[in-house]
Amino acid sequence: MINENYRQMLQEKSVIRELSEYAAARGKEIGQDNVFDYSLGNPSVPCPQGYTDALTQMLMNKDPMDIHGYSPSLGIESVRRAVADSLNRRFAMDYDSKHIFMACGAAGALAHAFRCVTRPGDEILIFAPYFPEYGPYISHTGAVLKVVPADTENFQINFAALEEMMSQKVMAVLINTPNNPSGIVYNTETIEKLADFLSTKQKEYGHDIFLISDEPYREIVFKGEDSPYVSKFYDNSISCYSFSKSLSLPGERIGYVAVNPRCRDADIIAVMCGQISRGIGHNCPPSSVQLAVAEVLDQTSDLSVYETNRNLLYDALTAMGFHVVKPGGTFYIFPKALEEDAKTFCMKAKQYDLILVPSDNFGVRGYFRMAYCIDMEKVKRSIPVLERFVREQYP
Amino acid sequence: MINENYRQMLQEKSVIRELSEYAAARGKEIGQDNVFDYSLGNPSVPCPQGYTDALTQMLMNKDPMDIHGYSPSLGIESVRRAVADSLNRRFAMDYDSKHIFMACGAAGALAHAFRCVTRPGDEILIFAPYFPEYGPYISHTGAVLKVVPADTENFQINFAALEEMMSQKVMAVLINTPNNPSGIVYNTETIEKLADFLSTKQKEYGHDIFLISDEPYREIVFKGEDSPYVSKFYDNSISCYSFSKSLSLPGERIGYVAVNPRCRDADIIAVMCGQISRGIGHNCPPSSVQLAVAEVLDQTSDLSVYETNRNLLYDALTAMGFHVVKPGGTFYIFPKALEEDAKTFCMKAKQYDLILVPSDNFGVRGYFRMAYCIDMEKVKRSIPVLERFVREQYP
Repeated sequence: MINENYRQMLQEKSVIRELSEYAAARGKEIGQDNVFDYSLGNPSVPCPQGYTDALTQMLMNKDPMDIHGYSPSLGIESVRRAVADSLNRRFAMDYDSKHIFMACGAAGALAHAFRCVTRPGDEILIFAPYFPEYGPYISHTGAVLKVVPADTENFQINFAALEEMMSQKVMAVLINTPNNPSGIVYNTETIEKLADFLSTKQKEYGHDIFLISDEPYREIVFKGEDSPYVSKFYDNSISCYSFSKSLSLPGERIGYVAVNPRCRDADIIAVMCGQISRGIGHNCPPSSVQLAVAEVLDQTSDLSVYETNRNLLYDALTAMGFHVVKPGGTFYIFPKALEEDAKTFCMKAKQYDLILVPSDNFGVRGYFRMAYCIDMEKVKRSIPVLERFVREQYP
Repeated sequence: MINENYRQMLQEKSVIRELSEYAAARGKEIGQDNVFDYSLGNPSVPCPQGYTDALTQMLMNKDPMDIHGYSPSLGIESVRRAVADSLNRRFAMDYDSKHIFMACGAAGALAHAFRCVTRPGDEILIFAPYFPEYGPYISHTGAVLKVVPADTENFQINFAALEEMMSQKVMAVLINTPNNPSGIVYNTETIEKLADFLSTKQKEYGHDIFLISDEPYREIVFKGEDSPYVSKFYDNSISCYSFSKSLSLPGERIGYVAVNPRCRDADIIAVMCGQISRGIGHNCPPSSVQLAVAEVLDQTSDLSVYETNRNLLYDALTAMGFHVVKPGGTFYIFPKALEEDAKTFCMKAKQYDLILVPSDNFGVRGYFRMAYCIDMEKVKRSIPVLERFVREQYP
């Protein structure tokens, strides 16, 4: 008999996915060029040529047994070494290969990190607005997700609300900076304040509180932004990374867990991830992808279009009268809707073939997300449509 | 604080892995040519050139966004379609793409299948001898693994023992044919008898009992063997497949779940797998690997060396007086040890640089496994060493 818990989950539809499917269907009717699909956070620039070259060269010149052979469940040792070296070089850290666990994207990295540092029933705090997939990642571990209300002034951290929700039961705090959906980068002041707060609470409660940092947008930070490397500020921390956005490889499911060498149990957390992987059956990311990524660790796709799009949209939206906190990175912007109910607002926009995602899914009401990982030319063409929508619906 | 359950697991060392590490270290001392490492089931022949060509061509000629873009969590639709078509063509089945879930190897396929059809506390029966990784796959779901003792006469199914262990609590039965570690292929008589037995028990208990079939060795079947396609015989069945052995791609973690179109809930089991994947964070196998595998679905590596090695070893071992059931497939052989304690037997063999795996790990006492996925020349050179070992230790 099939498991009713998993059957129940089939009811949980993704609003983002539904909107994106609507956009595709609508595009077939009126032409894709005429639908302004801001729904999906799917990179719009190709992977760097270096990645394609590295993989092609490998396939042409190397023994297939070396490319496609078993990877240890923690990842290929030379790849873990290369990741540690790259992080140490770029962020002045002191990772060893034993602190790196190669994961199937940030999703796999996060799901493993949650399992390592919580037990069923423990609480994990996250900050609104947040990426809704954290829900299933956490609920499958048996831990309990609690959402700290947003600081809607500037989308940094609402410390008053955090203080109120912190308790003995909290074993981990999850942050995501640069942030999906707000586009905001937590600045040094925010990270320092969070680190101090957690250090104090660790002492008060007499147990560790892990800071888990979800960093798939780490390489998409715009000019002049203060973007600190989280693990420099707090010892009991774990970084979860994905190459999906920086190298435009979302389908290849490749990322890693980097365990802070100064955290408690630093030497065994990666090994625990390996055991968890073994049990859930995913074992390790594909060997060819691990090897190819290791060749381009310090490269990125040409990410400049995202900053250009950010500028275009931020300027246009503010000129139209939207209240919007200027994103410092990612490819998202998160303006306040022009009426209280974001769903109604987005439904109205849909009539203009503007596909916007209401904020309710991200744990905040009254905002909407635009994923501007689309062609710059299309962003430009969308602006007069946005203007007409606002003029006609909110005169 | 780290999760003590997962920390405990760090104690569970793999005997096979330890033996293989010993063999590698010993090889450094005396030369790899002088160590006869029969420990690891790692394919010894390269992937077919067709796979390398398909992937290289794709990298050179296709838009990187199409190769590396997000795959739906159930797998790329065209790939699922191609897998269904291939199975229908080869086994006269009637799979639709909706019955196929692309998984990260057979490991991922099995772990998902267990979650779909059992709840924590339910029992899953397996037959000795068995692949020890089933232990962690099942324990992570909360279900309970129960081992049906072996039919040591011919390593088919011990139906008397099965009858005894069957109960209301059993929601799934797992088989692995061709079998690791025995190398035996379940014949049509065995599969029919099992199907009849399970059908009767379903009626008696008033609930479904799923037959989960682990089939990574399906393509490694030797001349003249009767190797039925399991799902033809029993409606409530799920096939779990990996390309690791047939295409020699163990590191690429690619396989699938094929849900019998005639089973209860046939239309939603693959979708449930997608939700499970989403929750544990592995999401889907890498898109480039899915696309490349779809180009070579009906191909295999040159698997003929395994049959040659089987013949060499079977003939030599029987001539030396070993009791051994002749393998019909895989690259394993599972002879009876020459003394009661297989561990002692294998320790003695180690002194001759013969690396054999004692059967205790596979749920049977007094046997040993040889993984003959090694060069034929090395198999030949190992025979006089085996003879000397037997002559000197068991005169």
